[in-house]
Amino acid sequence: MSLRVGVIGTGMIGRDHIRRLTTVLSGVSVVAVADVDSSVASEVAATVGAAVLPGERLIEDPGVEAVLVCSWGGTHEEYVLAAIAAGKPVFCEKPLATSPSACLRIVSAEVGFGARLVQVGYMRRYDAAYQALKDTLDRGVIGAPLMMHCAHRNAGVPAFYQADDMINDTAVHEVDMSRWMFGAEVVAVRVLCPRASGNAGGLPDPMLLILELSTGVLVDVEISVNARYGYDIRGEILGENGTAALGDPGLVVLRRQGGLTRPIPADWRLRFGPAYDAELRDWVSAVRSGSPPSGPSAWDGYAASAVSAAAREALSTGRRVEVRLTSPRPPLYDAH
Amino acid sequence: MSLRVGVIGTGMIGRDHIRRLTTVLSGVSVVAVADVDSSVASEVAATVGAAVLPGERLIEDPGVEAVLVCSWGGTHEEYVLAAIAAGKPVFCEKPLATSPSACLRIVSAEVGFGARLVQVGYMRRYDAAYQALKDTLDRGVIGAPLMMHCAHRNAGVPAFYQADDMINDTAVHEVDMSRWMFGAEVVAVRVLCPRASGNAGGLPDPMLLILELSTGVLVDVEISVNARYGYDIRGEILGENGTAALGDPGLVVLRRQGGLTRPIPADWRLRFGPAYDAELRDWVSAVRSGSPPSGPSAWDGYAASAVSAAAREALSTGRRVEVRLTSPRPPLYDAH
Amino acid sequence: MSLRVGVIGTGMIGRDHIRRLTTVLSGVSVVAVADVDSSVASEVAATVGAAVLPGERLIEDPGVEAVLVCSWGGTHEEYVLAAIAAGKPVFCEKPLATSPSACLRIVSAEVGFGARLVQVGYMRRYDAAYQALKDTLDRGVIGAPLMMHCAHRNAGVPAFYQADDMINDTAVHEVDMSRWMFGAEVVAVRVLCPRASGNAGGLPDPMLLILELSTGVLVDVEISVNARYGYDIRGEILGENGTAALGDPGLVVLRRQGGLTRPIPADWRLRFGPAYDAELRDWVSAVRSGSPPSGPSAWDGYAASAVSAAAREALSTGRRVEVRLTSPRPPLYDAH
Amino acid sequence: MSLRVGVIGTGMIGRDHIRRLTTVLSGVSVVAVADVDSSVASEVAATVGAAVLPGERLIEDPGVEAVLVCSWGGTHEEYVLAAIAAGKPVFCEKPLATSPSACLRIVSAEVGFGARLVQVGYMRRYDAAYQALKDTLDRGVIGAPLMMHCAHRNAGVPAFYQADDMINDTAVHEVDMSRWMFGAEVVAVRVLCPRASGNAGGLPDPMLLILELSTGVLVDVEISVNARYGYDIRGEILGENGTAALGDPGLVVLRRQGGLTRPIPADWRLRFGPAYDAELRDWVSAVRSGSPPSGPSAWDGYAASAVSAAAREALSTGRRVEVRLTSPRPPLYDAH
Repeated sequence: MSLRVGVIGTGMIGRDHIRRLTTVLSGVSVVAVADVDSSVASEVAATVGAAVLPGERLIEDPGVEAVLVCSWGGTHEEYVLAAIAAGKPVFCEKPLATSPSACLRIVSAEVGFGARLVQVGYMRRYDAAYQALKDTLDRGVIGAPLMMHCAHRNAGVPAFYQADDMINDTAVHEVDMSRWMFGAEVVAVRVLCPRASGNAGGLPDPMLLILELSTGVLVDVEISVNARYGYDIRGEILGENGTAALGDPGLVVLRRQGGLTRPIPADWRLRFGPAYDAELRDWVSAVRSGSPPSGPSAWDGYAASAVSAAAREALSTGRRVEVRLTSPRPPLYDAH
Repeated sequence: MSLRVGVIGTGMIGRDHIRRLTTVLSGVSVVAVADVDSSVASEVAATVGAAVLPGERLIEDPGVEAVLVCSWGGTHEEYVLAAIAAGKPVFCEKPLATSPSACLRIVSAEVGFGARLVQVGYMRRYDAAYQALKDTLDRGVIGAPLMMHCAHRNAGVPAFYQADDMINDTAVHEVDMSRWMFGAEVVAVRVLCPRASGNAGGLPDPMLLILELSTGVLVDVEISVNARYGYDIRGEILGENGTAALGDPGLVVLRRQGGLTRPIPADWRLRFGPAYDAELRDWVSAVRSGSPPSGPSAWDGYAASAVSAAAREALSTGRRVEVRLTSPRPPLYDAH
Repeated sequence: MSLRVGVIGTGMIGRDHIRRLTTVLSGVSVVAVADVDSSVASEVAATVGAAVLPGERLIEDPGVEAVLVCSWGGTHEEYVLAAIAAGKPVFCEKPLATSPSACLRIVSAEVGFGARLVQVGYMRRYDAAYQALKDTLDRGVIGAPLMMHCAHRNAGVPAFYQADDMINDTAVHEVDMSRWMFGAEVVAVRVLCPRASGNAGGLPDPMLLILELSTGVLVDVEISVNARYGYDIRGEILGENGTAALGDPGLVVLRRQGGLTRPIPADWRLRFGPAYDAELRDWVSAVRSGSPPSGPSAWDGYAASAVSAAAREALSTGRRVEVRLTSPRPPLYDAH
Repeated sequence: MSLRVGVIGTGMIGRDHIRRLTTVLSGVSVVAVADVDSSVASEVAATVGAAVLPGERLIEDPGVEAVLVCSWGGTHEEYVLAAIAAGKPVFCEKPLATSPSACLRIVSAEVGFGARLVQVGYMRRYDAAYQALKDTLDRGVIGAPLMMHCAHRNAGVPAFYQADDMINDTAVHEVDMSRWMFGAEVVAVRVLCPRASGNAGGLPDPMLLILELSTGVLVDVEISVNARYGYDIRGEILGENGTAALGDPGLVVLRRQGGLTRPIPADWRLRFGPAYDAELRDWVSAVRSGSPPSGPSAWDGYAASAVSAAAREALSTGRRVEVRLTSPRPPLYDAH
């Protein structure tokens, strides 16, 4: 039997997930959708033969076995808590919630429930290149890790994008990736800003984010959100005996007009599309088999939120800021 | 409703396709399987809840909407003709049949039926890199094509692998790819053999296959089947204004022990796994929508068979051999 | 007529320069050598038909038209000042002198002389790849510069190598390169240290040096001196419209044993040998034509020394340290 | 003492060699020049303080210790024979002479003299990348060689360039390189022509030259002389256990406008400039030390000429043509 899923939020990412669940993946069907704009919800629902319900009702509906939360970030806490209360698996797009304390309330609810129900949408853990990088590291190919150099470059950002979004929306991917890659918490953050790009439109763009991990590994991340030339994600880990880096892009190599050129993708859809597929495939598979999700947990969502808060403070003060995790990690989130 | 598929042949490739149909793709289910070894068929059937039937019965069964033929090559003609007789879509692993004349009988039957029912499993057309290469060519990025240089290297081959298999099983992928890439027929073939590798075990390995296309494009293909170092597929098209090549492999780049290294896959599963997924996804989608399949046709299977026959003659005689296509391509196979 | 050169110091670098002057370059001959160990000096002198003189006498000798100082760093100030006093062009291996104040005395002497006589041996300015990078930047290909990411990795270092040497001997190359590349002074320095490598032998290895330039450009430099895998120099400039990086090494590309590998040189001789040739070729050419040297000046030597002093303080205190340049740059050092 | 050289021919290549001898290399001076256009000769002579003499007189002049022949190909035989008669070392630009029989007369004269005096200007043997490739092969890194795939692409050619020049002037570099790389003679040649490029201007461009070596190694060479995008020299050797290829060009790597780009040089000067330097440095060094030249010999010049003749016949007949070497190689040309 297919897993019966309800999707809350039918904006861009919600619709993309619905397409994925109905035309790419096996073993899952979308039985209900919700959106603040019920006409959009109805339109989307019609294309996949799903019911339209208000978000809370969708979560409670006995025909819905698991929930995807793809709505506006400010609503995540409420929906995820409701899903936990209903004892239903819930996949929540990033961020888990909009503050560390809100995230912590979700962690507490899940710990109270006694089993993992929540997966957060940090899809880089499902990217084949990052997975190969982690596998290389874990097999000891380059020795114990010491540093990682990253770059996260967007060709451009929409007009509503703010300075804090460089941390909350953009750098947060490297925050989660670093925690996962090295199996460690971020303990302190610095943000250094060179002179801003003429393309920056008032943003502190580019910036250099420096993460100190609990194991002593140092991660530096260049964040450029008006890099113009394309969407480019880079990462090189320095180990004691060598380095391992994400490969360069390029299905094809051109030789023309005086250059040997590998195309760089224009945006994240081209770069991480297969990771989104793999992320939901893994989640569906876990939920169908009755296992806890193996992807990013509520604790991961909380930790990312706490690091983001520290990074925002580091950006505004120019100082090194320590990350304050309110409590030790509950045993529920130990790796098995 | 899911498409109900029957699979004939539960050897390695058959089982892999069953896994793909049941755990990777959406909108399809495996309802029946057949194999000469009925105990294997029963074992496989049990894992996916399918019935076990003899091949002919499976094709006729009203619960089976479409058929996959994954059995031994010598049986393909019979099963594909039966599927056409039953008016059912049929996906046939390569080769379509074991001789040009057998392939031509299938073409005739399909033309007689009046619509395309057959797709042949030349999966390279579904590989993202080859597709990007073709897209580059078709957009005129490098100008009109003149030559293509290819290499097809296997780390090794099984003991039962024969000299003719270098053409029938291995080079045939480049034959189909060339016809598709350049929209042209192969009109003549040469095979040149340097001294054989010490690893060749009696095979004429490596060989250089040279294809002349009807448009004047020349394609050279190095075939190495004991290349040892890995599975490596290369291709560079020379156009009037530049070249376009398949990118090098490598999700990660290592720097260690005096070298900057990108891993090369050990076998074709790692290299073309996603292409197999895409191939069947496309076929399922076409069949479900009632469209003719857009993948390699029975005519493509026939043409590949005719080129292989010419290449075998070129190998044994050392001469340039012209490809004899018995008849013009029936209009059924015109691109739409 | 050949330029008649005297060489002070016949250790490793001195002998290498003598080889270069006598067998690689045109228009120059070595007429005298000096060394604290006169037997070594005599041995070297015999191979090239040069006289042996004490350093001070060599500088004064009327047969010596120009001087190379390749002796121990602690003696540089004395010899360079003597050469200026004698009005003779002098090429001094790095460092110009062992403290900012000593460097400043040389600057003052040269300003007093009224013309440039001193060139300092920062050879990266003569490396073809760095020159191509600077040319790319100067032509505006990537827009105005914002950041630069560098890595300077040695496979290993000798037993006598100290923590301060990571700055004075190693990172100083990136300091001079950054000043030259961006035409700006370094105004502040940070040094961040992750946990040390198990190969570090007590050194704070690796470290991340962060340079703030007067133009707002930020340069980060990973310094690893026990990187094991080879000698690797990396640099990528982020501009407003793109990036430009040093190409990867590799005259050849190997495909073997499951990998596509480009060799990485074992040490700096392989990487920068041609730059040493070009550096002295340019110096000989300038001196012969009566022009001031166009390479790194005494002011560049002083600035590098001041940045090194700040970086050592940053390393020991963990704080951001501003670079104190005692005076504005004298007009003698303006670019022409 | 400097080696005193006379240069015959002050056209483009002659002037470039004079520049090289007088401003790049050590231990050599140009004392005399000759040219059919004596006013050009005088102009060039004045810049380096050399005498102007007729070619024959230059060779006989007792002040000239060694000769460079850079004149029009049709005059090479006469000048090289005169130098041998005078017992003087002679460096002759390619081709050694304009026919196999003319080359053979030079071989006979040199054998009669009893020692090697002639070096031919096949400079690829001095290219660092080809040398690294040969070193890789000779060290057994990829096992015994089986095939080599080459491409020789010029962006364009002058109006006077003819079809035969594709073989005599262009492909001849790969002919000499193959003989040197594999230590074997070319025994047969094929030339295959796809449809000609729209840029070809009447030339059979591109063509595929296929060389069979005496050891059974097969070398294929794409010759494109209107490739437009740049000057590109490629080569990959297939060995029994792996492959080794010339690295891609690129001192810098750009990321801009949707692509990661390595520049490709516009012409051969940029690609092989250092090889020309190394070639003459080696020749000067050998002559000064009284050793026979270690570069390409008169026999190499003869063999290249014989292969070119066979290739021209293969081009005009479309057939495989065997190379006819008139005699076994004289012992004078055995490697030492």
